[in-house]
Amino acid sequence: MAAAPAVDPGPRLARLNADYARAIDDDRLEDWPAFFTDPCLYSITSAANVRQGLEVGVVYADSRGMLRDRVTALREANVYERQAYRHLVGLPAILGEAGGAVRSETPFLVVRIVRDGRMDLFATGRYVDVVVDEAGTLRFRERVVVCDSSRFDTLLAIPL
Amino acid sequence: MAAAPAVDPGPRLARLNADYARAIDDDRLEDWPAFFTDPCLYSITSAANVRQGLEVGVVYADSRGMLRDRVTALREANVYERQAYRHLVGLPAILGEAGGAVRSETPFLVVRIVRDGRMDLFATGRYVDVVVDEAGTLRFRERVVVCDSSRFDTLLAIPL
Amino acid sequence: MAAAPAVDPGPRLARLNADYARAIDDDRLEDWPAFFTDPCLYSITSAANVRQGLEVGVVYADSRGMLRDRVTALREANVYERQAYRHLVGLPAILGEAGGAVRSETPFLVVRIVRDGRMDLFATGRYVDVVVDEAGTLRFRERVVVCDSSRFDTLLAIPL
Repeated sequence: MAAAPAVDPGPRLARLNADYARAIDDDRLEDWPAFFTDPCLYSITSAANVRQGLEVGVVYADSRGMLRDRVTALREANVYERQAYRHLVGLPAILGEAGGAVRSETPFLVVRIVRDGRMDLFATGRYVDVVVDEAGTLRFRERVVVCDSSRFDTLLAIPL
Repeated sequence: MAAAPAVDPGPRLARLNADYARAIDDDRLEDWPAFFTDPCLYSITSAANVRQGLEVGVVYADSRGMLRDRVTALREANVYERQAYRHLVGLPAILGEAGGAVRSETPFLVVRIVRDGRMDLFATGRYVDVVVDEAGTLRFRERVVVCDSSRFDTLLAIPL
Repeated sequence: MAAAPAVDPGPRLARLNADYARAIDDDRLEDWPAFFTDPCLYSITSAANVRQGLEVGVVYADSRGMLRDRVTALREANVYERQAYRHLVGLPAILGEAGGAVRSETPFLVVRIVRDGRMDLFATGRYVDVVVDEAGTLRFRERVVVCDSSRFDTLLAIPL
């Protein structure tokens, strides 16, 4: 039991996913848009939507500017109720490589911690990504967040 | 802080565990038996049972045929209530190697998402495995699923 | 998409974190102090405390002797109610290296399984560590457990 691929992008993708989660969990939302290329695709949807072939997600952005606007809106809205999140991500599965871009999927689980200290399971699902290397930095050209649950009322609040 | 073992089976075991979890979470249950050798041992038990030296688990299969029968039964039973699962697995611990087989343990957590979108912690525990390389593909010769909890009423439903 | 650092301490840190979690989850608490140097710093605190600049945690130990005392107290107190824990840890982020010591952060989630089999989210947060190599074995010179929630009533019970 020995061999592994000669050039394995897996560890770099795992690192990217961990850094992405850490930025959100550390409440460094202003760093979040830089994880994406510009233009990009960021979308939150549900597994049920994907099964039904619905392309449109509940949340959608196609540029860093839109991602930044989203962070600004969050900062203004979240004055009253401070929440925190904790992401746990699994190992990325590499689905394909073409033209320097890697398609991958990564499972995730997010716990929400509300102001009084209560914790709840906020979301589970998988990231469906297209990742490219921009001058040595990996970025998401596409990140579609496919949530297992279709309950989306509060999902609008934060980046996942 | 540098050295690591010359030939580390860890990354391949991590990959195997991630692929296994992904097959179940993607509802590709028909792919599940191929993660095992034939014959094999697949069993679900509890930490309390293991502590008491009880060998027999709640679920038991010793061939791919039995695993396939299990999937068939699930497909027939699950017409009414669609559920989804999300596995998060930790890093495998390698406990030993002998004759080309690796003994390892891997912690896991499974969230269940029921039809109306509610999520709950379904199971936590550790996989106790014997893994072999069959012509370049890693497979479980044994996978004993040791759940932390002894509540087993619903555990019979799905592969863990 | 190829290159990675020449000497990557990441896999060894991931292994250390997994072994630490496994010792606790296997109820091998007597092995826990050996994950630390002597003297050391072990502390449990909250993200809110850290934000407010409060240095002092709810739990504090600065030697293996204190860690051992803690385990002894737990063994005496826990006669009546057996609980189990399951840690899931994420990928360590390496924040810096100096003088052979590595500063890193690792996200975690802990599920508690109580006697009747119920499971609940017990804690989430991040480990803020200083790790050194002592004759080939990685140990925590500092491990500050920063919990996302400030609910600390029951947190006093077990090592995190």
